[in-house]
Amino acid sequence: MLDWFEDKTLNNQLNAIKDKLQKDLKSGNNYFNESLDYLLEDGGKMLRPILLLIGSRFGKLYKKKGDDLVDIATAIETLHVATLLHDDVIDEAKLRRGKESIQSKYSKEYAIYMGDYLLSKCFLLLTELNVPKELAIALAKVVSRICIGEILQFKNRYNMNTSLFGYLRVVSGKTAALFAISLSAGSYITKADDKTIKRLAHAGYQLGMAFQIVDDLLDFIGDEEEVGKDLRSDILKGYYCLPVIFALNDESEYKDSIREIFSCGIDENNIQQVILLIKKSGAIEKCRNLAIRYHDRALQVINRLPKNSGYDLLMELLPRLIDRVK
Amino acid sequence: MLDWFEDKTLNNQLNAIKDKLQKDLKSGNNYFNESLDYLLEDGGKMLRPILLLIGSRFGKLYKKKGDDLVDIATAIETLHVATLLHDDVIDEAKLRRGKESIQSKYSKEYAIYMGDYLLSKCFLLLTELNVPKELAIALAKVVSRICIGEILQFKNRYNMNTSLFGYLRVVSGKTAALFAISLSAGSYITKADDKTIKRLAHAGYQLGMAFQIVDDLLDFIGDEEEVGKDLRSDILKGYYCLPVIFALNDESEYKDSIREIFSCGIDENNIQQVILLIKKSGAIEKCRNLAIRYHDRALQVINRLPKNSGYDLLMELLPRLIDRVK
Repeated sequence: MLDWFEDKTLNNQLNAIKDKLQKDLKSGNNYFNESLDYLLEDGGKMLRPILLLIGSRFGKLYKKKGDDLVDIATAIETLHVATLLHDDVIDEAKLRRGKESIQSKYSKEYAIYMGDYLLSKCFLLLTELNVPKELAIALAKVVSRICIGEILQFKNRYNMNTSLFGYLRVVSGKTAALFAISLSAGSYITKADDKTIKRLAHAGYQLGMAFQIVDDLLDFIGDEEEVGKDLRSDILKGYYCLPVIFALNDESEYKDSIREIFSCGIDENNIQQVILLIKKSGAIEKCRNLAIRYHDRALQVINRLPKNSGYDLLMELLPRLIDRVK
Repeated sequence: MLDWFEDKTLNNQLNAIKDKLQKDLKSGNNYFNESLDYLLEDGGKMLRPILLLIGSRFGKLYKKKGDDLVDIATAIETLHVATLLHDDVIDEAKLRRGKESIQSKYSKEYAIYMGDYLLSKCFLLLTELNVPKELAIALAKVVSRICIGEILQFKNRYNMNTSLFGYLRVVSGKTAALFAISLSAGSYITKADDKTIKRLAHAGYQLGMAFQIVDDLLDFIGDEEEVGKDLRSDILKGYYCLPVIFALNDESEYKDSIREIFSCGIDENNIQQVILLIKKSGAIEKCRNLAIRYHDRALQVINRLPKNSGYDLLMELLPRLIDRVK
């Protein structure tokens, strides 16, 4: 995602965040540090730091607060990586960012402690740095929300009656809340006006919802082999992504057949048939429409923001988030 | 442990911490809150809050800072409970505090997220409250140290050549660091002088070492049935507690026989024999002596503290920690 932008300042800041991640997360233990290098070597999409840096453009101090922005973005990315580590343990994910996941390479136990370590490092960064108290509180609350979101999702496994509302509540906690704070935190630091900060949080929230729905969709329409495997494994483990929920609950001629297979028990033999039925049911289109709706809501809010370099960057970022499912 | 003390102020503060744990850790989700009530219903030993409250007696403001002390002790206990949750996942522990563990009752996945949630709540408490920045930083560092300690221990599994030094390094990170900060943090809040704060940290560290060694010992000499089961399971999983390390490394006529069995592979059939050999090797006594040495070092430091109600409480607490193995 780094090479999407031509903005030099943004790229420099992103590189500074990468360096800081490599440096500040190290421990006194060599074995651990090697696993950390492995974890960080490709760097990931850095979407949350990008949001934070873009948001920072809306405040008048954005040229003066460069170091603070890098610091806080590093903390947010650390938090995100920590949650990925634990998610991979729970999903038993073999791959992450195109290579073997920590839980698969080093064991689940190791990934749990490594995630805890990164969480504590995120807190340490926030405590050591000059992060305004309100922002540190808001971030700690987001972490709690992420955990409760994940707990809700876990508890909802195998629940054929999960409603759209229930699904959205989970996504709101596990994804959108962090997007909201990421896009608004930078502008808070650079002293944007209150209205702008609120709009950025609002736009970030809508983008987070769209992003997660698109992620769910990609399982259905993405590159066949690997993606299909994850989707099958998720459904078998009772994690129903949005197309599944739509297909199970909306009125379509396929609904009853799909529900019947779910009730009798899904296994390796009939899962491909279920996926086919879901695709035929129109759930994919509903899902796509919902993603576009959230995207458009974000766009509406963004269009009421001041037109500056931050606005331009957001307009550059937006299609990349949603185009993935077009 | 609550009923060990006759000090009314201490008991009131401990009750306030219990109430605060029940109240402040709640989420907006009923299902989660029920599991939290289950987790907290017996309250545990509250050893770290007790240390903090005792330490607070050494500062001149100890009567004025009651609320702050309760707040910080709540955060420290929250952190401790979070680490227990994740430890139980990793050890696959069926029991905790005499009843079914969260990971066994609610699943490992649930316990991971619950632990993360509590970690974030610990941080939220520290951020929201008036905790001095230096203390919040020190606490975040302790969490990192705990994780690295656990990682080292995990990595050392099945290593017959783990040295006493290696063992002590692990214990230093996973137990003693939190004891040190617990015993000293209260005195920092109540504005004790620097020398006293340092001495409390030092004494807390030595007590933490003694406490963990005693804990290792109890596996060997405690109440047969349940304790023996844990010990066997730990050894089979490659976690060698201190008596095992002593037996594998010290000069005794049993060392070679024990090493031979370890090399050929331990299983349910020969583990009882190994435990018997370890007991015969003198490892238990060495272990006990080391615990007493740490205890005595703590005592030496404590004896150089001002003689006040905090000192009296420490003298009341100390034998309870070490007597368990006498």
